Amino acid sequence: MQLGLVGLGKMGFNMRARLRDGGHEVVGYDPRPEVSDVASLADLAGALATPRVVWVMVPSGTVTDSTIKELSEVLGEGDLVIDGGNSRYTEDAPHAELLGAKGIAFVDAGVSGGIWGLTEGYGLMVGGSDADVERAMPIFDTLRPPGPREDGFVHVGPVGAGHFAKMVHNGVEYALMTAYAEGYELLAAEDLVKDPQAVYQAWSNGTVVRSWLQQLLARALKDDPGLVEISGYTEDSGEGRWTVEEAIRLRVPVPGIAASLFARFLSRQDDSPTMKAVAALRNQFGGHAVKRVSESG
Amino acid sequence: MQLGLVGLGKMGFNMRARLRDGGHEVVGYDPRPEVSDVASLADLAGALATPRVVWVMVPSGTVTDSTIKELSEVLGEGDLVIDGGNSRYTEDAPHAELLGAKGIAFVDAGVSGGIWGLTEGYGLMVGGSDADVERAMPIFDTLRPPGPREDGFVHVGPVGAGHFAKMVHNGVEYALMTAYAEGYELLAAEDLVKDPQAVYQAWSNGTVVRSWLQQLLARALKDDPGLVEISGYTEDSGEGRWTVEEAIRLRVPVPGIAASLFARFLSRQDDSPTMKAVAALRNQFGGHAVKRVSESG
Amino acid sequence: MQLGLVGLGKMGFNMRARLRDGGHEVVGYDPRPEVSDVASLADLAGALATPRVVWVMVPSGTVTDSTIKELSEVLGEGDLVIDGGNSRYTEDAPHAELLGAKGIAFVDAGVSGGIWGLTEGYGLMVGGSDADVERAMPIFDTLRPPGPREDGFVHVGPVGAGHFAKMVHNGVEYALMTAYAEGYELLAAEDLVKDPQAVYQAWSNGTVVRSWLQQLLARALKDDPGLVEISGYTEDSGEGRWTVEEAIRLRVPVPGIAASLFARFLSRQDDSPTMKAVAALRNQFGGHAVKRVSESG
Amino acid sequence: MQLGLVGLGKMGFNMRARLRDGGHEVVGYDPRPEVSDVASLADLAGALATPRVVWVMVPSGTVTDSTIKELSEVLGEGDLVIDGGNSRYTEDAPHAELLGAKGIAFVDAGVSGGIWGLTEGYGLMVGGSDADVERAMPIFDTLRPPGPREDGFVHVGPVGAGHFAKMVHNGVEYALMTAYAEGYELLAAEDLVKDPQAVYQAWSNGTVVRSWLQQLLARALKDDPGLVEISGYTEDSGEGRWTVEEAIRLRVPVPGIAASLFARFLSRQDDSPTMKAVAALRNQFGGHAVKRVSESG
Repeated sequence: MQLGLVGLGKMGFNMRARLRDGGHEVVGYDPRPEVSDVASLADLAGALATPRVVWVMVPSGTVTDSTIKELSEVLGEGDLVIDGGNSRYTEDAPHAELLGAKGIAFVDAGVSGGIWGLTEGYGLMVGGSDADVERAMPIFDTLRPPGPREDGFVHVGPVGAGHFAKMVHNGVEYALMTAYAEGYELLAAEDLVKDPQAVYQAWSNGTVVRSWLQQLLARALKDDPGLVEISGYTEDSGEGRWTVEEAIRLRVPVPGIAASLFARFLSRQDDSPTMKAVAALRNQFGGHAVKRVSESG
Repeated sequence: MQLGLVGLGKMGFNMRARLRDGGHEVVGYDPRPEVSDVASLADLAGALATPRVVWVMVPSGTVTDSTIKELSEVLGEGDLVIDGGNSRYTEDAPHAELLGAKGIAFVDAGVSGGIWGLTEGYGLMVGGSDADVERAMPIFDTLRPPGPREDGFVHVGPVGAGHFAKMVHNGVEYALMTAYAEGYELLAAEDLVKDPQAVYQAWSNGTVVRSWLQQLLARALKDDPGLVEISGYTEDSGEGRWTVEEAIRLRVPVPGIAASLFARFLSRQDDSPTMKAVAALRNQFGGHAVKRVSESG
Repeated sequence: MQLGLVGLGKMGFNMRARLRDGGHEVVGYDPRPEVSDVASLADLAGALATPRVVWVMVPSGTVTDSTIKELSEVLGEGDLVIDGGNSRYTEDAPHAELLGAKGIAFVDAGVSGGIWGLTEGYGLMVGGSDADVERAMPIFDTLRPPGPREDGFVHVGPVGAGHFAKMVHNGVEYALMTAYAEGYELLAAEDLVKDPQAVYQAWSNGTVVRSWLQQLLARALKDDPGLVEISGYTEDSGEGRWTVEEAIRLRVPVPGIAASLFARFLSRQDDSPTMKAVAALRNQFGGHAVKRVSESG
Repeated sequence: MQLGLVGLGKMGFNMRARLRDGGHEVVGYDPRPEVSDVASLADLAGALATPRVVWVMVPSGTVTDSTIKELSEVLGEGDLVIDGGNSRYTEDAPHAELLGAKGIAFVDAGVSGGIWGLTEGYGLMVGGSDADVERAMPIFDTLRPPGPREDGFVHVGPVGAGHFAKMVHNGVEYALMTAYAEGYELLAAEDLVKDPQAVYQAWSNGTVVRSWLQQLLARALKDDPGLVEISGYTEDSGEGRWTVEEAIRLRVPVPGIAASLFARFLSRQDDSPTMKAVAALRNQFGGHAVKRVSESG
């Protein structure tokens, strides 16, 4: 089918390629002319036959906000907008309302898979009405991995449900990564273990802990044994923070996910104010020696 | 090749079957005559041609201790004992020493895979000398899953290294399970999500969090939606406790694994003494109402 | 000085008494006529000489919102409203703006001390302009404990700063309570310890861990050795949740406070969905026995 | 009464002074002649009238082991040894047995108070038989703070109980310090808060969180606002590690204490191997930029 695709960055660019390979007609728009098929969102709207389906794949927050606002002006009654970015699920209802006022339908789609999605397909979690989701199904079926639909695609619930599930997916992802990483640190710390990489590699088949992330860590350790080239400084893109915030709202205890989030915060501090205060306290009551900042290497 | 196998429980019974399917001659011993091939460990020793290889697959701790002690008496110079149970790695050196005094070699083998190992193969992590490990390689090659050897088998290091890696494997497993379980609780708590099972099922392909455990949770939720039939009461078999203890010894921070372990402890308490004390404190300073035990349903 | 006091519940009632003991003229309003000095907020405004100072001590959220809205209608230019309740600090700016539109000044005051404040004085953390805070200083000086002002009172910063500091105070309080409670559970679990109460009592003088909460726990254990009468079910009143949410906004790792918050959530669950999922997973891969709900006592 | 005191370091030196001030006759021994009253442990034994009481105040572990062994050789039937150091409680039974073989009694004493004990008195937690503890009571009464005995001294139980309680005391202390330190970091991160020191100072009276540690943190922040001079690098002296290990043995969940311990481990790492692995994973699946070590400042 025909699809408008807004945003041709790391994700959108690959998705256009996968969709075209799948036989769809994709008109892509991006502010960078060298990758864009049309010059503007208005041109995009003009290039598509009505009723149109437009997939938005841009950074969450203000860029998605302004893109959807602009789309509400160039699209019209009967069209459908799909937000495939990492928007917070609480933003979906306002977006749906804004578009709905113009008779434009809305579906939110959480997309997982990263740079591997081009060849392996993307895991999809979508929210919206049955009719709207059904309408975009040919697109979903091409983006998702081959195999049974229910193994790589889920219609989670009404508008917002797709991004909620994707947010939880990423929260779980944080904790899984921490789990494998703690295991790596333990293996690397113990002299008996000759090569942690070989252990991670050997977990690929037969073990309880086998997974895609386990294989990626084995691969990373093969590329850079000891991870000497990589800093522990780790960004977070929002979903982990939102997951803990939603857990608090829902009164769900999430010690594993929260520990993973806090570890990222800590990784970005030059020194921990919390630990400075602890060191200062020890010094106060015990006369314990403290490490002066000037002593640090 | 020929192998003596001591312990024909849930694991050993299946391993005998897999090894025989693989063309090996297995003489199994178990105190339960209905599954045993021989009547005693002495008979087992007598039934094997020297130099013998004997795999021990019995509960860790005192049963493994006494089995290895008995084997040191019925086996002799040039034989090899493999401990495939979940022994703590610190027990391996004493066992190796006890056997070594009689000229018997020792290899420790961590075995993962549970009840699925019969058909899919077992993930193997072994410790010992190169020569001893090489000698048992035909056995390892049959037990492990098909495919490249390094994807399901690793010679981790000297005696003890196999069980150390298996302990870490299980510690990681605890944290992975908690990660998926926290995600489930979040999905189940949010009204937008129609069916958490469908989300877990859809994570099978394409997503970053896809794994064997993810698929098992999807399966468990299919069998018992809402998990209404299952209690949260969860045993632990030792490896998680040991992992945190070793982390402390090695000064490795493991917040994710420790949180998973503590959650299991908590799941087995009727009420938490810690939270009783917290509730008592709130009552003391704030006059906050407390829930009397007699009010509990 | 003269003060209007809105809300004569557990806190406000005692504060009126302490202020009158301190020589202030307090006109209190509460919807319950049996404790109220006047019949309505309008009457309260009428009973006070201008420029008026009115302290609001009602539940945070909608009750505080509607009280401040009503006060904006019955008070006028030059008056001052102090919110002494547990409002989230983010609500202070809107309240200040609403009142400011009528020329009414606003100060937020975090108040600690619970039921003990009547006799011992209340710890006060306030936010607002220097002039507004100075204006209410006679009230603050009577409410706070005797001794140096800076040991029981702080002007933290502009509007919102007082409630922010109080929120952090309560977040810290959560973690302190958990710390003492974990210590209690350890002492109670070890047979060598004859009486955990005696240990907590003996921490009163000389030790590093001595504190008011330590003494309260010693007292609680004296009243109910073993805490047999009290359930671990523990409510939370919001500040702990807000503290973790603000920590996430500020990218501050707070594993101790978060663990305390999650422990409260858990204390209110009949069974943990997370642990049900963990138990289900163990059953799936290991054939481990699970505890059926029907087996539970 | 007369007391032999072995070890005149930071703690023992002050204790000798406090005991002499209290009217006791103290013969101190230390390998450093400039502080020692006698030249050897044998001389110490010779200088005391039988039956002797000797207090050992030396580093835990091998130094305590060898000191007690030597004392078992120079003391005799009817004497009493008190170990006031930070020995792990599991070492007390072997020490008691070693001494008991010579007819020498043993008491373990956990001592809290740090450098402040000289003037304020030490919190004492002791283990041993009623008779042995009673015998040393004049010493305990002088070392502990003035006031009711039960507020600064506790006979916790049989041999080992004193050190167990002291270990828990220190575990709780870790978590209390983390609680205050997390609060400090939150206050310091929020622009509304003009001066975190003033807030900590104001918590001294009336608040729920008031304590000795709170006052020490206020003092530390007064000495070094912003804690710019102090590094977060924090040692641990053993009791925190032991507390978590004992919690695991007793199946007691201690998320607060464990988080505090792990934070100390982390504070001593130049970079976190766990976070290196997390960063490597993000790079693998998402093509997320990583910070190369060479980019670090």
